[in-house]
Amino acid sequence: MTFAGLDPMVERVLDLAGVLVFALSGAQLGAQKRFDTVGIAALATATALGGGMTRDVLLGDTPPAALRDQMFLIVPLVATAMVLVGHRAVERISRPVLVFDAMGLGLFCVVGTAKALDHGLGAVPAVLLGVITAVGGGVIRDTLARDVPWVFRPDSTLYAIPATLGAVAVVVLWPNDALNATSAAVVVAAVFGIRVLSARFGWKAPTARG
Amino acid sequence: MTFAGLDPMVERVLDLAGVLVFALSGAQLGAQKRFDTVGIAALATATALGGGMTRDVLLGDTPPAALRDQMFLIVPLVATAMVLVGHRAVERISRPVLVFDAMGLGLFCVVGTAKALDHGLGAVPAVLLGVITAVGGGVIRDTLARDVPWVFRPDSTLYAIPATLGAVAVVVLWPNDALNATSAAVVVAAVFGIRVLSARFGWKAPTARG
Amino acid sequence: MTFAGLDPMVERVLDLAGVLVFALSGAQLGAQKRFDTVGIAALATATALGGGMTRDVLLGDTPPAALRDQMFLIVPLVATAMVLVGHRAVERISRPVLVFDAMGLGLFCVVGTAKALDHGLGAVPAVLLGVITAVGGGVIRDTLARDVPWVFRPDSTLYAIPATLGAVAVVVLWPNDALNATSAAVVVAAVFGIRVLSARFGWKAPTARG
Repeated sequence: MTFAGLDPMVERVLDLAGVLVFALSGAQLGAQKRFDTVGIAALATATALGGGMTRDVLLGDTPPAALRDQMFLIVPLVATAMVLVGHRAVERISRPVLVFDAMGLGLFCVVGTAKALDHGLGAVPAVLLGVITAVGGGVIRDTLARDVPWVFRPDSTLYAIPATLGAVAVVVLWPNDALNATSAAVVVAAVFGIRVLSARFGWKAPTARG
Repeated sequence: MTFAGLDPMVERVLDLAGVLVFALSGAQLGAQKRFDTVGIAALATATALGGGMTRDVLLGDTPPAALRDQMFLIVPLVATAMVLVGHRAVERISRPVLVFDAMGLGLFCVVGTAKALDHGLGAVPAVLLGVITAVGGGVIRDTLARDVPWVFRPDSTLYAIPATLGAVAVVVLWPNDALNATSAAVVVAAVFGIRVLSARFGWKAPTARG
Repeated sequence: MTFAGLDPMVERVLDLAGVLVFALSGAQLGAQKRFDTVGIAALATATALGGGMTRDVLLGDTPPAALRDQMFLIVPLVATAMVLVGHRAVERISRPVLVFDAMGLGLFCVVGTAKALDHGLGAVPAVLLGVITAVGGGVIRDTLARDVPWVFRPDSTLYAIPATLGAVAVVVLWPNDALNATSAAVVVAAVFGIRVLSARFGWKAPTARG
């Protein structure tokens, strides 16, 4: 599932950076909810890996990638430890976290969509799995913490929408063999950009009329 | 998984009608909760396809049927669009929705149970998977919307019970090669009838004593 | 997945005892929440089998063991019937239930971890799957009942921690071919002991500082 021309080592580092940032968002929510160590570690792990694991289970690619590379499970434990000893300090770095989170969003939707296409799925299911990869962990995080999923709320800024656009771009590039390290990086950057601008300017998805 | 004698085209149309009605119930709940477009689309998709996808994942039949036929994903998007532009109008048609929902309930429990038997499961697991196919999407819908699952509530009229009876009927018919288009239609009609009568007369399942 | 030297009949009885106790805890929560028969049966089944089914789906071992042996589904129905006719009586036996629950915890984490190792998973993923086997059903139970998962709460006594320690012990014993009926029984007993002592003396896991 590596893109032609993208160094596997670089891809792994980017992947793990995304996992760390998603894990931090889960661990932070656990700390805010006053969960104990178990709850914080569970939210960190579910947020970071829940989306990709759901994708792999639906594709029948089991055990999921997150259970075959032990680093994927160790990183959420690192995030748990960071939040246990200094969740106030982690809170103060919420701006950098937003930036990394937007990078994770772009990366995960591109990787997830490409993997689904690689398994022979059609365009629409591939977009769905790309979005689930990027957004599913957060939905699981909020459900376990007994919150309404943040991406469903009318006051949430655009998050699943840029992931959907990124997934659609991958679906368009794929049949023309035009998905490579360069074009993938452009899509990730575009998702990143839309997400960061949405957060900055408060762009929101429409709700039902009336 | 087609029944002998049932036109596959007819089965597909019935299937998609069930998906549309379940998707409308998810999208409506999303609109009532004031979710944004993402939330409404997610609830529509999860309600319509969550039960069948859970069944297929448990059977090891991956990717699930709902990811192999793109219409299954497009129909919930149609339901989302309908609710976005006119959820008040959709509300006004709640009586026809009840009727279609009862048809979906009957259809999904029969199809789900038959598929489980076809995969070699025993009678009790096949009933469970039939009920999950019919009711699972609604449980996921309510959990994501942070409601107690409607089918668990003491004030809910019979819903999982007619699905269970339909699944049991399929289990009884199966070993005698007596499940065909006619007998399946009778079971679907019986589930439909019990469900509609329960809604009309307020029949409820018992709770714990004391 | 039987341990060398452990009578399969004995293992099955222990397994079913664990399923019964977990099912009772689910059914009791359903009765306390005033759920109807469907809700009580669903919580009983999800609590008893949800952890093991999640493990098997992640391992790709489908249909899950709980769908291949019909007794695993019948036992939660027995628990449902017990709670429907006498949930006050079941409440009065909460002390024996605590004891059996702690046995189930020990047994399920050992069995789950060993199964994951047997499928070739690494140490950290195997520990995760062992803990999911033991604790996952309870997390699903609480989420469906719209509670914060009990194991996440700061006021919960140690539960996932002893399961984690038991899973780590299995991971250490495994490569040396030192996991047999005797050593497994010792690990189960240790998990049981830590759990019961935690409940007795109110031991709790730490929360985030500050």
